[in-house]
Amino acid sequence: VTPEDRFVARLREMLAEDPRVLLGPGDDAALVRETAGGALAVTTDMQVEGVDFLPNEDPHRLGRRALAVNLSDLAAMGAMPEFFLLSIGFSPEKGEDFPLAVARGTLSRATPLAVSLIGGDLSRSPQTIVSIALWGRTESRTAPRSGSSPGDLLFLSGFPGRAAAGLHLARRLSAGGPPAALAPEYAGELLAAYRDPEPRVALGLELSRRNLWSAAIDVSDGVGMDAGRLARASGLRAVIEKDRLPVSPALAAFGVLEAKNPLDWILSGGDDYELLFAARASARETVESIASRGVPVTLIGRLEHGEGAVLRDGNGDREISGLGHDHFEGRA
Amino acid sequence: VTPEDRFVARLREMLAEDPRVLLGPGDDAALVRETAGGALAVTTDMQVEGVDFLPNEDPHRLGRRALAVNLSDLAAMGAMPEFFLLSIGFSPEKGEDFPLAVARGTLSRATPLAVSLIGGDLSRSPQTIVSIALWGRTESRTAPRSGSSPGDLLFLSGFPGRAAAGLHLARRLSAGGPPAALAPEYAGELLAAYRDPEPRVALGLELSRRNLWSAAIDVSDGVGMDAGRLARASGLRAVIEKDRLPVSPALAAFGVLEAKNPLDWILSGGDDYELLFAARASARETVESIASRGVPVTLIGRLEHGEGAVLRDGNGDREISGLGHDHFEGRA
Repeated sequence: VTPEDRFVARLREMLAEDPRVLLGPGDDAALVRETAGGALAVTTDMQVEGVDFLPNEDPHRLGRRALAVNLSDLAAMGAMPEFFLLSIGFSPEKGEDFPLAVARGTLSRATPLAVSLIGGDLSRSPQTIVSIALWGRTESRTAPRSGSSPGDLLFLSGFPGRAAAGLHLARRLSAGGPPAALAPEYAGELLAAYRDPEPRVALGLELSRRNLWSAAIDVSDGVGMDAGRLARASGLRAVIEKDRLPVSPALAAFGVLEAKNPLDWILSGGDDYELLFAARASARETVESIASRGVPVTLIGRLEHGEGAVLRDGNGDREISGLGHDHFEGRA
Repeated sequence: VTPEDRFVARLREMLAEDPRVLLGPGDDAALVRETAGGALAVTTDMQVEGVDFLPNEDPHRLGRRALAVNLSDLAAMGAMPEFFLLSIGFSPEKGEDFPLAVARGTLSRATPLAVSLIGGDLSRSPQTIVSIALWGRTESRTAPRSGSSPGDLLFLSGFPGRAAAGLHLARRLSAGGPPAALAPEYAGELLAAYRDPEPRVALGLELSRRNLWSAAIDVSDGVGMDAGRLARASGLRAVIEKDRLPVSPALAAFGVLEAKNPLDWILSGGDDYELLFAARASARETVESIASRGVPVTLIGRLEHGEGAVLRDGNGDREISGLGHDHFEGRA
C-alpha cells in the first residue's frame, strides 16, 4: 500500500455517492454511465520532467509516450479510446515549436487508433509537464479490478521489466559511457520498451468483447505491486510461479552484464504498460489462441484465497506486493 | 494574437477531420457528439505554482480555485458540469494530507453543483501543479465563440479587474507591508475576487437554455484580449463604450491609492472568470431581466463589421485586443 493508494482510499471516503458514476477513483480508468445506456471510460496521467521522464527528453517522443501511458489504462478497461485533452507546461525558452512537437508525438499514437485531440491548455512551467485526459467507450463487459474469483488464472502480456532496464540503460548512456558489451539489438529493444511502450489496446478490446477476463490492471508500477493491487481489489491472493515469468533474451543478457537478477526489473521495475489480467480456468485455451495471433500472453499463475501477492518456486513463497515503483515517491 | 493562440491555430492544421467532434481546440471547451444525440462539453486547465498562483498557496484554496477556473469554461458553453479528473503534482515534503486538502477544495466547489470527482493522478513535482479535466453536457443551443452577427450587443457579468487588483494586493501583503489605507471590506473584496472567483455556471445555463446569446467567452485574460478573441471568431470587431464598463467601488478606491487607472486592470488584468457574451439587440430586455435576479450583467458595447476590439469614448477609439494576459507568457 503506497502513499498514492492511501490517497485514493481517503479520497473515496470524501466522495458522495453518485448513481451516474459506475466506477470512481482507484482503478485504471473511471466509468461514467452515458445517457444512451453504455459507459464512458475516462483516465488521466501527468508526466513530470525529472520524475516520470529524463530531463530534456525529445518532445515528440515525450508526447508519444504520454499518450501511450493513457491508452494503456483504457486498454486495461477493454475500452475503445476516442478523444483526449493535452495540457503542456514548459519553459518559454524551449520555443513555440516545442508544444507542437509534443502534440505531434501524441498524434503519432492517436491517429492509427482514430483517437482525436480535442483541446488542452498551455502553461509556463520550469519543468516540462505533460498532462493528458483520455476517454472512450465500453461496448461490452468491462474489466474493473475487482471481478475475479479464487481459481482464476493470471495472464501477463509482453515482457515486463524491459522498460525499467531500458531506463537504466538510457541513464548510463546519457552519463556518457557506452553500455558495456550489450548487443545493439538488445540495447535497442530495452530502450524502445522504455521510450516507446506499446499500449495493448487491441488485446484489451478483444478480451473484453469476448468476455474472456474477470479482472485486469495495466502494469505501470512493476508486476509485484500491480499483482498485489489486482488481487486485493477482489479480496484474493495472487500466486505467481517464478518459472513462468517471461524473461526476454535482451533482459536476461543485460542482467548478466549488470550482475542483476532480471526478475527484480520484472517485479519492481515499472513503466511496462503491459496487461496483467485474470480469466476463468475454462477460458485458458481461448486466451492463449488470441495471444498466439498477436502480442504474446503468458500464463503466470492464479488467484487464491488470501491476500497479497507471492512469487512461488521450489523453495516456497516470497511476498512481492510490496515491491515496485510508486509514482508518488518518484525515481528522479 | 498570443503564442497560445498561434499554438492552437497550428495545432488545428495538424488535426484530421473527425465527424464526432463538434468543436475542437480553441474555444472555452470542446464539444463531442454523444451517441444519444446531445453533446459532451469538455475542458481542461493546468495551474502551475509561481506562474498561475502564488508560491505556498493554501491547498484548499488552490483546489477550490482550480475547479472554479474549469467551471467557468463550461459556463461559457452553457453546459451543465458533471464530472472531473484531478491530477496533482507536489513535493513529498508537503506531506500526504496536502493532495487531500487540494481535493477537498475542489469538492467545496463541486458538491453544491452535483459535480463528481471520478479519478486523477498523483505525481512528485518540485512545483505544485493542479491539472483538472472537467466535462458536462449541453442540453440546448450552445455558445461557441463564432455565432455572433454585426449589431449584436456585448454584455459582461460581474466586475472584471478585481482579480488582478486582488493579486497585486496579495503580493503586497505577502511582501510584508499592510495595504496603504484601503478599507478592509474593499481589500477583502479584491482578495476574494482573485482567490475565490465565482464561476457563472447558473448564468451560462440560463442564457443557453433560453437561447439568449449568440457567442460567449469566459474572461480569463482581460476584457481587452478576450473581447478581441470573441470578435475575431465571428470575423467582427468589438466596440466597447468606456463609460459603460462596470467599475466596482473597491477597484476604484484601490486605483486611487495605487495611482493606477482601474480600466487597466479591467482591460488587461486577467483571472476574472466572468462571462463576456453577445446577444441579439432584441434580447436586451430579457438578458437584463435575468441579470437583475442574480449576478450583475452590464451592457458594455456591440459587435460591428471590422476586426479587433476598441474602447470608445468622446475622444475616439483605442485598440485594446492586444492588451491582456497570456498564460503562456505567465506572470510569475
